[in-house]
Amino acid sequence: MRITLINPNPSRAMTEKVAVAAREVAAPDVEILAVCPAPGEGPDAIESHYDEVRASAAILDLVSRDLAAGGPDAYVIACFGDPGVDAVRELVDVPVVGIAEAAMHVASMAGRTFGIVTTLSRTLGRAEDLVLRHGFERACVSACGTGIPVLALEREDPAAIERIAGWCERVVREDGADAVVLGCAGMADLCRELSERVGVPVVDGVAAGVGLVQAMVRMGVGTSKRDEYARPPRLAPEHRAAGDDTSATHEPVSLTA
Amino acid sequence: MRITLINPNPSRAMTEKVAVAAREVAAPDVEILAVCPAPGEGPDAIESHYDEVRASAAILDLVSRDLAAGGPDAYVIACFGDPGVDAVRELVDVPVVGIAEAAMHVASMAGRTFGIVTTLSRTLGRAEDLVLRHGFERACVSACGTGIPVLALEREDPAAIERIAGWCERVVREDGADAVVLGCAGMADLCRELSERVGVPVVDGVAAGVGLVQAMVRMGVGTSKRDEYARPPRLAPEHRAAGDDTSATHEPVSLTA
Amino acid sequence: MRITLINPNPSRAMTEKVAVAAREVAAPDVEILAVCPAPGEGPDAIESHYDEVRASAAILDLVSRDLAAGGPDAYVIACFGDPGVDAVRELVDVPVVGIAEAAMHVASMAGRTFGIVTTLSRTLGRAEDLVLRHGFERACVSACGTGIPVLALEREDPAAIERIAGWCERVVREDGADAVVLGCAGMADLCRELSERVGVPVVDGVAAGVGLVQAMVRMGVGTSKRDEYARPPRLAPEHRAAGDDTSATHEPVSLTA
Amino acid sequence: MRITLINPNPSRAMTEKVAVAAREVAAPDVEILAVCPAPGEGPDAIESHYDEVRASAAILDLVSRDLAAGGPDAYVIACFGDPGVDAVRELVDVPVVGIAEAAMHVASMAGRTFGIVTTLSRTLGRAEDLVLRHGFERACVSACGTGIPVLALEREDPAAIERIAGWCERVVREDGADAVVLGCAGMADLCRELSERVGVPVVDGVAAGVGLVQAMVRMGVGTSKRDEYARPPRLAPEHRAAGDDTSATHEPVSLTA
Amino acid sequence: MRITLINPNPSRAMTEKVAVAAREVAAPDVEILAVCPAPGEGPDAIESHYDEVRASAAILDLVSRDLAAGGPDAYVIACFGDPGVDAVRELVDVPVVGIAEAAMHVASMAGRTFGIVTTLSRTLGRAEDLVLRHGFERACVSACGTGIPVLALEREDPAAIERIAGWCERVVREDGADAVVLGCAGMADLCRELSERVGVPVVDGVAAGVGLVQAMVRMGVGTSKRDEYARPPRLAPEHRAAGDDTSATHEPVSLTA
Amino acid sequence: MRITLINPNPSRAMTEKVAVAAREVAAPDVEILAVCPAPGEGPDAIESHYDEVRASAAILDLVSRDLAAGGPDAYVIACFGDPGVDAVRELVDVPVVGIAEAAMHVASMAGRTFGIVTTLSRTLGRAEDLVLRHGFERACVSACGTGIPVLALEREDPAAIERIAGWCERVVREDGADAVVLGCAGMADLCRELSERVGVPVVDGVAAGVGLVQAMVRMGVGTSKRDEYARPPRLAPEHRAAGDDTSATHEPVSLTA
Repeated sequence: MRITLINPNPSRAMTEKVAVAAREVAAPDVEILAVCPAPGEGPDAIESHYDEVRASAAILDLVSRDLAAGGPDAYVIACFGDPGVDAVRELVDVPVVGIAEAAMHVASMAGRTFGIVTTLSRTLGRAEDLVLRHGFERACVSACGTGIPVLALEREDPAAIERIAGWCERVVREDGADAVVLGCAGMADLCRELSERVGVPVVDGVAAGVGLVQAMVRMGVGTSKRDEYARPPRLAPEHRAAGDDTSATHEPVSLTA
Repeated sequence: MRITLINPNPSRAMTEKVAVAAREVAAPDVEILAVCPAPGEGPDAIESHYDEVRASAAILDLVSRDLAAGGPDAYVIACFGDPGVDAVRELVDVPVVGIAEAAMHVASMAGRTFGIVTTLSRTLGRAEDLVLRHGFERACVSACGTGIPVLALEREDPAAIERIAGWCERVVREDGADAVVLGCAGMADLCRELSERVGVPVVDGVAAGVGLVQAMVRMGVGTSKRDEYARPPRLAPEHRAAGDDTSATHEPVSLTA
Repeated sequence: MRITLINPNPSRAMTEKVAVAAREVAAPDVEILAVCPAPGEGPDAIESHYDEVRASAAILDLVSRDLAAGGPDAYVIACFGDPGVDAVRELVDVPVVGIAEAAMHVASMAGRTFGIVTTLSRTLGRAEDLVLRHGFERACVSACGTGIPVLALEREDPAAIERIAGWCERVVREDGADAVVLGCAGMADLCRELSERVGVPVVDGVAAGVGLVQAMVRMGVGTSKRDEYARPPRLAPEHRAAGDDTSATHEPVSLTA
Repeated sequence: MRITLINPNPSRAMTEKVAVAAREVAAPDVEILAVCPAPGEGPDAIESHYDEVRASAAILDLVSRDLAAGGPDAYVIACFGDPGVDAVRELVDVPVVGIAEAAMHVASMAGRTFGIVTTLSRTLGRAEDLVLRHGFERACVSACGTGIPVLALEREDPAAIERIAGWCERVVREDGADAVVLGCAGMADLCRELSERVGVPVVDGVAAGVGLVQAMVRMGVGTSKRDEYARPPRLAPEHRAAGDDTSATHEPVSLTA
Repeated sequence: MRITLINPNPSRAMTEKVAVAAREVAAPDVEILAVCPAPGEGPDAIESHYDEVRASAAILDLVSRDLAAGGPDAYVIACFGDPGVDAVRELVDVPVVGIAEAAMHVASMAGRTFGIVTTLSRTLGRAEDLVLRHGFERACVSACGTGIPVLALEREDPAAIERIAGWCERVVREDGADAVVLGCAGMADLCRELSERVGVPVVDGVAAGVGLVQAMVRMGVGTSKRDEYARPPRLAPEHRAAGDDTSATHEPVSLTA
Repeated sequence: MRITLINPNPSRAMTEKVAVAAREVAAPDVEILAVCPAPGEGPDAIESHYDEVRASAAILDLVSRDLAAGGPDAYVIACFGDPGVDAVRELVDVPVVGIAEAAMHVASMAGRTFGIVTTLSRTLGRAEDLVLRHGFERACVSACGTGIPVLALEREDPAAIERIAGWCERVVREDGADAVVLGCAGMADLCRELSERVGVPVVDGVAAGVGLVQAMVRMGVGTSKRDEYARPPRLAPEHRAAGDDTSATHEPVSLTA
């Protein structure tokens, strides 16, 4: 089984970090391919709706190239805003999972409630959209921004770890979270240490996503191609595959003709 | 007062159509500027999550150019998926409204319930996300796809009108909708005729959006710049404005330094 | 276009205040008629469910007289409990909007979340009913009573402004509101000053209501007369209009006859 | 224990009918007083929001007179729209229950789900408001109007019974209701027959309300006077009781004085 | 009328205490039979999901024996986790009510909101399940564990009363509860004193349950036997009654035969 | 890694069937141990709340024996009512997942919506409780009983397959489900065939549960022992482990002593 893990920012250090986290949860027969955009193909980090639009476009390009090279058994999108997940689901019939939804699914099986500890508070709106989209509005008892920018997580920084640990403690002690969801792929390497310090399961979405798609691949469960996630009616030339209808043009369609 | 109306697909005919609908609800002191991407800058129509990603990127480009040219008093995004609305809100401090949210707000003041009649059923997932995002899950008693592609609405087609009218009747008679929301900017010109045939208010989002932002501009209510919708921490060179921090680079940030 | 603005309490000073707020957001072609009950026709202020029952009855009388004099293009009910809105909708086919729903619709387009700052905490139950009725239970992150009675707002009072500003700050800083909804028509004149002090959009329902019904009138969208808001089956003599069935009596109706 | 049962329409026949239903569920030590307005003091029936406003005002008058005569141990408001219940709660500290909420509480203990079968479909909006207010949106799987006006239920009519029974069957067989809630006080006498025909519990709100307030009185549980339901800050002269503050005037209140 | 009150723990002192509370709210014509398991037949107290499984099994045994002895007109299960209520409903056609649901129904008629004050915080998850099951997620504004184990309530203890009173104060003053629900049958005897101290209705579920089933019995409303609560398809020999199908065996069933 | 799969009914054929389904999704380094009660230790099938109580008790016994024998890395409870899952979580610190929650988590990653196709309609109430408990009330668009008893699934039966396939078709075509959740462990062997016939992912909870706990074990994520799922305060002698407090007695606890 091969899983393509997409880091939508161009940081090579962060891509390597998530690849390590992914390989730690891969079964012996699972291969991980971690990819990221070239510098300039997408935003340097994803910390706004604006960044998310640009990251989603970059992810579509990465997926198309990956599909042209054969395509994997599953995709994991390694950004906590789950950018482009719905669009990628339209392009493929294998499982596609974002790390936010993945982490929330796993956390909700580790206890009744969880809290999210993420980077900038401005991204909490998107997190709330995802919580609601996936039905975790009762399970998620707290969502906090630490004020730490994504790129500050590129390399290990004791001050960042301290601050994140403090927020993890808070969602557990004050908000009653049974588990903690880490709200950034860049926190993947902190998961074990945080779990030990806080004393409850701390869930990294990269590991969760890789774990969940493995389950889906072994089950033979892919993306439903019924209606919403069917192949899109038109594709840019750079995203087309053999068999796509390329006749879609700007000509108006007539129902009566 | 000047309102920029963005049609995110490159159809000149449809852009003209929505401009007409907008001008019909503009007060005497309101000027409408309707813009659309050049062919190839975005998808020909927006009928999938894939299209939405590309349309959102095209909208950001249009807004940046419009801002460079002075900027309006408000933006209306004339596509029923409300693509890019959150991102555009980050870029400006004037009101920004999508036509789906606008139509739902207006319909919910015309009665207790409404039904959505849209183009392809595959877009209903996105509509459902918006219904939930804006709290209309009880008001919206029905959402139906007519199977009519967006571009079939570019010019008036009696068969399309018949089919849409049939679905409007159905959401009113069978699902108990007090009003109907038209789920595509391309239906703007059908609004009056449909309302007469069905006997309940039929709401076009373009008119709704233009009406609502007029109210907001007169009230002095713009987009809240608190946290989520504050100016993004980094912008692509083509989207930067005077005063933006251009120092954002790929260098990792250190909390301890 | 003519809009009738109904202040359901008999305070002439407050009626004048809301008329001013309304005119500030009226387009050049819009005329505002502000009316209120004669002293004794309704409660002096609306600060309880008891007051709301009496105010609703007074509003029906005002509307009937206004209709007899020709009737406007739209009604705005200028009390934050939205008293009598459903009943007035039954009486007319033009738009009818209460200032609570109007303010919440506008606030939810200015950001993701809002907080309500109102008069006496005892009215928060009614506010909660309206939040739920209109689907704003996720958007509304906070609702606070300032302890200031309605009539203390009749004339400008620096102490009242200070107290209200303090609560506005609190819903923004502590509860994370992107915007503030003012929970009393008597606060209409404070809107601009509060917005400047707090730094986020502060929404007055009177302006919001007048803004929204203008949009609806221009769109040709009135009150749906399907079922719930159809003309009531019986009316008191003082509320009847030409064409009403006046045969409704106390005689039992027989289904078999 | 004495319970005052308020029928807010002036039908003597219907008042007698609900008194009979109430007495059937009264314990040996419980006395029922059934009252209704004089003809012309309120609407002949309550089938619209308009009627509800006028009925609520009539109920306040009835309660004030009843209180002046000593007051009961509990009030039951015998109209399915629960008109005036919140306002009456402000006036007293004994239990006050509307028959809609009462019937829904009882039905939800008789099974997981219930359906509502009521008179005119135009009243279903109010029923939906009450369902939501009391948290029964999952328990209530169906709400149907039979098209039978309230006053057609004044005397037994086999055609009405047949039609109601048909709708009861439908909510059970097609909508999966475990129990049926009758949506009008005028159906109180049909309860037993319908239950036998349909084979599931059929709940009359009059009996439910009288049953529930008996429980509350025996428990010593009345209406909470904390904030929302505290005695209103001002009362019309005809509703005042000994001890009320009668100083409330139209003079503006100053916070600084 | 005879009501069987089941205390699922074997404490004779607590059984006597709940019997007293039940008799205080019984009408003159109502007889209370309070039963509990023999020591060792179930857990000593119910403070975990583990305890709940064992208590539910013990309750089924108690009900079967009670039915064999004639059976009552209604059952009340006197443990705040409402253990076994769904299963007992399958066994009988009379009303069956748990004290948690009963207390929440009554509290929600005493005001808009309530708070739950219970024993160990570890039981709050189960309380939350019940709140959601019965639709009280908006009415219940707070749920607190006092840290007092169930058996510490067996006899009156001034320290326990102080601590419980403190939590009652807190849910009222800080969380805005209009009423308090006591989260343990062992608190039944504290109800009156707490209500006086806190100044709002304090609801004991034992009294509530006994009060509500009295109402249901007088109404002729039992447990709906439609589908979910119909007699189970198979019963252990010790739970069978005359008329049960005893042929259910381990043999596989064939649809085609 | 070793996973214990608990079939709570005593059918050896069904236990073997679920073991086969589990092994098909096990990674090369995963060992499956499938266990079931001895005949008479629990119900022959779980088709009622009554059965669920008895099955839960049997599961606790099985887990205690399994723990005494060393204990696995994770538990999967192979019954669609997820009996005893909360209680088992209290007993261990490894992951514990029920097949209903597991199937719903997986299905919701295969599409936006799913439908449940189960055995007897009387079990749908429990399914609804689980849907709500885990937040799938929007994702789950349909839940249907086929009328096929659990034991009819013990061996393959073409008539049963046909009937189940018909219901799968229906939830997809009529109710708009993107995926189907099979509502019984006994359907595990039908999953592939049904998926091919219906054309959307069909999810078997046994495979889903085994897949998900593998992910959790590799992630180092177990059951949160914070509060609710901490080891229970008391255990029956047969369920005690080394280190448990065995002093818990029937003696009342004093807070003041």
